[in-house]
Formats: sequence, structure tokens, C-alpha cells
Amino acid sequence: MAKKIKNNKPMKRRSFLKGAGAAALGAATVSSFPAPAISGGHMEWIACSAFGKASLLGKAIERFASYINNQSDKLKITVYHANELVPALESLDAVRSGAAQMAYGAGYYWTNVSNATQFSAAMPFGLTAQEQNAWCYYGGGIEAADKAYNAIGVKFLPLGNTGNQMGGWYNKEITAIEDFNGLKIRMPGLGGEVLKSYGANTVLLAGSDVLPALASGAIDATEWIGPAADLGAGLYQAAKYYYNPGWHEPATILDCSIDMFEWEKLDDATREMITVASKAVNMEVLSHFQAVNDSSYQKLINEHGVQMRQLPDSVMNDLGQRAGEVVSDIASKDPEAQALFSHIVNFRSSILRWTGVSEKEYLRARSLPFAYPSA
Amino acid sequence: MAKKIKNNKPMKRRSFLKGAGAAALGAATVSSFPAPAISGGHMEWIACSAFGKASLLGKAIERFASYINNQSDKLKITVYHANELVPALESLDAVRSGAAQMAYGAGYYWTNVSNATQFSAAMPFGLTAQEQNAWCYYGGGIEAADKAYNAIGVKFLPLGNTGNQMGGWYNKEITAIEDFNGLKIRMPGLGGEVLKSYGANTVLLAGSDVLPALASGAIDATEWIGPAADLGAGLYQAAKYYYNPGWHEPATILDCSIDMFEWEKLDDATREMITVASKAVNMEVLSHFQAVNDSSYQKLINEHGVQMRQLPDSVMNDLGQRAGEVVSDIASKDPEAQALFSHIVNFRSSILRWTGVSEKEYLRARSLPFAYPSA
Repeated sequence: MAKKIKNNKPMKRRSFLKGAGAAALGAATVSSFPAPAISGGHMEWIACSAFGKASLLGKAIERFASYINNQSDKLKITVYHANELVPALESLDAVRSGAAQMAYGAGYYWTNVSNATQFSAAMPFGLTAQEQNAWCYYGGGIEAADKAYNAIGVKFLPLGNTGNQMGGWYNKEITAIEDFNGLKIRMPGLGGEVLKSYGANTVLLAGSDVLPALASGAIDATEWIGPAADLGAGLYQAAKYYYNPGWHEPATILDCSIDMFEWEKLDDATREMITVASKAVNMEVLSHFQAVNDSSYQKLINEHGVQMRQLPDSVMNDLGQRAGEVVSDIASKDPEAQALFSHIVNFRSSILRWTGVSEKEYLRARSLPFAYPSA
Repeated sequence: MAKKIKNNKPMKRRSFLKGAGAAALGAATVSSFPAPAISGGHMEWIACSAFGKASLLGKAIERFASYINNQSDKLKITVYHANELVPALESLDAVRSGAAQMAYGAGYYWTNVSNATQFSAAMPFGLTAQEQNAWCYYGGGIEAADKAYNAIGVKFLPLGNTGNQMGGWYNKEITAIEDFNGLKIRMPGLGGEVLKSYGANTVLLAGSDVLPALASGAIDATEWIGPAADLGAGLYQAAKYYYNPGWHEPATILDCSIDMFEWEKLDDATREMITVASKAVNMEVLSHFQAVNDSSYQKLINEHGVQMRQLPDSVMNDLGQRAGEVVSDIASKDPEAQALFSHIVNFRSSILRWTGVSEKEYLRARSLPFAYPSA
């Protein structure tokens, strides 16, 4: 259920800053905080990120702000990482209350205000990162997603992509679809809904609670991201099996949500600067994840004795069929979600044919047993 | 063999402008052409592109220049498309002569001055676009390529990617590796060298000569790019079979080559602006190709009766083995080529493992026979 958009932002912002966030902001920041109207052509934005400062994504949002701050004499962005100003998952709320002008996160983090934005983030058996970017920039995707984001008062821009995620960490092997029945698993979002339909008990846990829950047996399994992030989270300490591939999040768009009121005040050149910088950071984040995953993956296997498992084709085929049904059903309950879902699956059916004759067949052929130099 | 870098650029530039290029430049442009030293902090660059104005890549280089021109008060870039100022494949020569400050093309266009740059553009059975970007930005790739580009006087930046290309247009079916013996095929670069080793007669033809040569039987086959570009080139009119996938160019980096002398004169903020814009355009070009290929592919099959063929696995395996041998051998003849080749294949052996458990297996699973909504 979407909250109503606030339009008395100055008041809202000031009352928010006197509240929980004021201490974190610090006196200097508060005193320099501008009225939302442009003062001398110079605006200051606060960006609230749902990710930790030290993470790959924390560094990405810092770079984005830095690109703008270095180029623009009209806009300055100050980043607050997860829990520095507001709790991670309240980053969009901070924008909607007027306390911040930009949020960094992922569409499935905002389900408290929109049933639709999660569809553009990731869909089980949906688009790959390359396909998502084609959809966003040349498939009408940004415009389609913006209908959902505008409805909650913000402008959407893609600002990074995880690429294909891993299937998750399991303490039980999955050899048939029935093995999901009764499984206690942390899997948020649409993927979790698919497993629920097979009798899994899906739970939501914040990042820091996942490892203890897995270690204590409170959960049997969890999905996270991919080797680099999963190694850092230490999940190998509490789970035997590492499953590939990530059917529930074939790729996930990280999103930048900008207060519509602030976006519309910008001149064309500043909007273009933001758009260009967002494309650059989108490219950087995906490239960064791809470049570092293998070395972490090797460490997990060779130093931590992790056992790789792949979901059998029979299970994947069942999951694919069920994913289409479950996700369609969820979309059908909300007109904005239905519109966005239809736009994505329409594009999917087209680009899937092209990827099927190109990338898919090339990757298959490249794994034939021929020798190839490695140095 | 690399030409010596010119250092008397003002003289070179002026003498060039009085020559063949002057008419194309036009009086207004020539009169406003600055001395290469910074005049009042404002510089004007000429970018020579190897691609046609109306092509997807012609529009991409226009956008790149526009991004810089809109943001910078220190640098203005004017684009000349293929043959507007110099012939397409002399774009880098124009930079090296001092007549232009930037060239847009692909590393295998510059084999008249470097044996090395072609390796970063594309390698048979090498990296996908996603992997190339990971290599460039977080795998030390730009620095490794820059050793080759700096040696010919320019700074390298990736400025787009074709993604996986198609295998090419054939009037003979390929069912065994022996079928390449005696085949007359247009396939430039390293892929062509692989086919030569099987007795193919590879020829180089400019774009406009390809269709007539195929129609007359002067060649039996040609590679080009992918469905969108190939449809535009009309190649379906003269070839029966359209082969997938593109093993010879699994993906191709389009490159921006900036005069080192001009690059080093820029302040840090302008260099960052160029770098950010180049990443954005890199993202745009790949996304654009991916978004439009399927509709062209469907037209080729459904409206023009093109017959799709896939190279058999036995042929692909032989080509993969031979590609490694042939490309290694070519690299070994030039120290710069060897260094760049080693850097790429070292990265390839790592990221191939990660892509192998993620993207490759996901794409395979997604093509299992389950039903999925399409609208």
C-alpha cells in the first residue's frame, strides 16, 4: 500500500531533522542544510544508502556522489550509509518524508510503500544483467519503472547491478522439488514466494542475523548474493553446500530514487549529468562484482572446503514453471505491479531469443573440452 | 610496426588542414580551430570516427561529445564521422598526425601501427562483453591495454561494445572442419587467421564491397556484426545461411584513442568527466545492440527467409583449440602483443570459472521447456 506523497516538504524536513536523525546528521550539516528552494543556484542533497559504507555498494554510491560533486557547481550530494542517518531499509522513507533527496537500494526493499518496484529489481527466471540494462536504456524500461516509482514520489535510475547471484547456502541437499517442503530458508521477495508455494518456511532476517540463525539451525538455508559478498559474510562457516545458479535473482538492479520535486527543479544539464554518472556507476558495479567473484569462489572451495552443488534440471524446470505462475499472480493484485510485470515479460520473451542464439550458445561452446592458453 | 610519435603538432595540424581534410572541415571550423596549447583554458578537439554518421555507433560518438560539450567549459569536441575528414580506417592516423585529438574505432582497425591493440578488441573464444568490462575496469585491463596504446601515442578508453556477434553469412553449409578448406571468406583479424590455418582464403573488404562480392560469388561467406547491423547491410540478399554463435568475436570493445599529449594537458576533473562519460557510452552501446537485435533477427527469419545454422560442437571444439594456438603464435611475435595477450588470457581463465557456474548455467536452465508468461 503506497503512502500518500507529502507536499509540505520544508516542514516535514525540519521536523524530521529535529527527531531521530538530528544527532546523526551533526550540527554542521544541519546548519548548512538548505531550504528545498534553490538558494543562489546551489542545492545540497542528502543521499541515504541501504548498504554499508565499507561494502562494494557503499563505495559505489560514494563514487556517484563524488562524480556529481566534482562536476557540478549547482548540486552537492552528501552520502549517509546504512544506519548512519536512518535504518537501511528506511532510506526511501527518508526521501518521502523530505529528510533526504535520494535513496540507494533495490526495488524489493521498498515493499512497504510499493507492490510494484520489486519487479524491476529482479524476477525469478527473469532477465540477466545485460538484458536488464538493454531493457532500461533501450527497451523503455526506465519509463515503465518510473510509472511505479513516480507513484511513490520518486524518479528511478539504475545505479548498479549484482549480476547473476548464487542459489544460496544449504545444510540439506536438494535433489527433488519436494525437498523444499518444510525447509526453513531466508529468501526475501518473489523468489521466497515461489518456495513458499512448495511448503518452504521463508523468513526475513537482517544481514547480521543470518549467520547466527544458520549456525543455530533456526534456518536450514539462506540466499545471499554471490561469492565475494558471501565470503565476507562468513556463511561458509555454517552451511555445507553452496548452490548455483541464482534462479531467484538472475541479476538485481540497484536503484537510485530521487525525490520527484527535487528532480523536476533541476536544469537539463544537471539531469543529464546525473543520468550519465548513473550509467557509469551502473557499469562499474556490475564489472566490479564480476571481476572479484572468482577469487572469492576459489577461496570458498579451496580454503574453506565448501561443496558446490547445482540444482538438478528437473528441479529448475519445476521452479521455472512455478515462478511464472506465482509472480504473475502477485502482479495481478496491483495495477502498477501488473503494468510493470507485463512490460518486463514482454521484453523478456524477445531478448531471450537473441540471448539464446548468441551469449547462451557462445558460453556453452566455450566450455567444450578444447585447451586454451591461460597465461 | 609503430610509427614514431610526432611532437611538432601545431605545424603538422596546420599542414594537414590545408590538405585533403580542409574542404570537409569547412571555413568556420578551420578559423575557430585553436592552437593545441590551452587558450584561455578552453580547448577544442576533433574526434575522427571510423563509423558512419547514421549508424548506432555514429550516434554513440555524437552522444559522447555532447555529454562533454554540455558539461565542460574547458573542452569542446567536434565529431567527424567516417570519411568526413579522413577515411574510416585512418582515424587513428589523424590523431597521430596531430590533425585530430581523438579517434573512435576498434583495436583491430589499427594494425597498420600496432600489432597489440587488436587483442583487447576481441579474441576468438575470448571474453564476453560483461567479462571485458570487468577486465577493463576492475581487472587491470585499461592499464594493460594502455601499454600498447601509449606506445603509439594515445590513451585508451573503452567506448562501447557490440556484445556477442553472429558467426556470419554462408552460402555453403559447414558440417566439418574440413569445409573451411578453400572457403573464400571475409573475416578480418585474429578470427580470419584461425580460418586461414584450415586453408580458407580470407579477404579484407570495406563494408560497401561486401554485399556485391557475396552476390557475385567472389566470396562464399562473410562475417559482419549481428542481426541489427547485418539486416541494414542487406546481407540476407546474397547468402542462404546465417550462422551462430560468433566465436571469432565473442564481444568487441569499441575504443576511444586520445592523443597522449592532449590527455596529459587536461586537469583531473576533465579527465574524470571524460572517463565517466566513456563508461556511460560503453553501457549505452552494448545495451542498444542487445535491445534491437531480436527484432532484426525475427525479420531476417520471418520476412527474408533466412535459414539459421549453428556450427556443430565438433567444429567449435576444433576452432577453440586452434584459436588458442594461432592467437598465441601471433602474440609471441611482438612483445607488446604478448604482454597484452597474457594479461587477457590470465583474466579469462579466472572469470571463465565464475561465468561458468553463474551466467552460463542460468542461461541453460532458463531455456528448459517450462512455460513462462510473455505479457
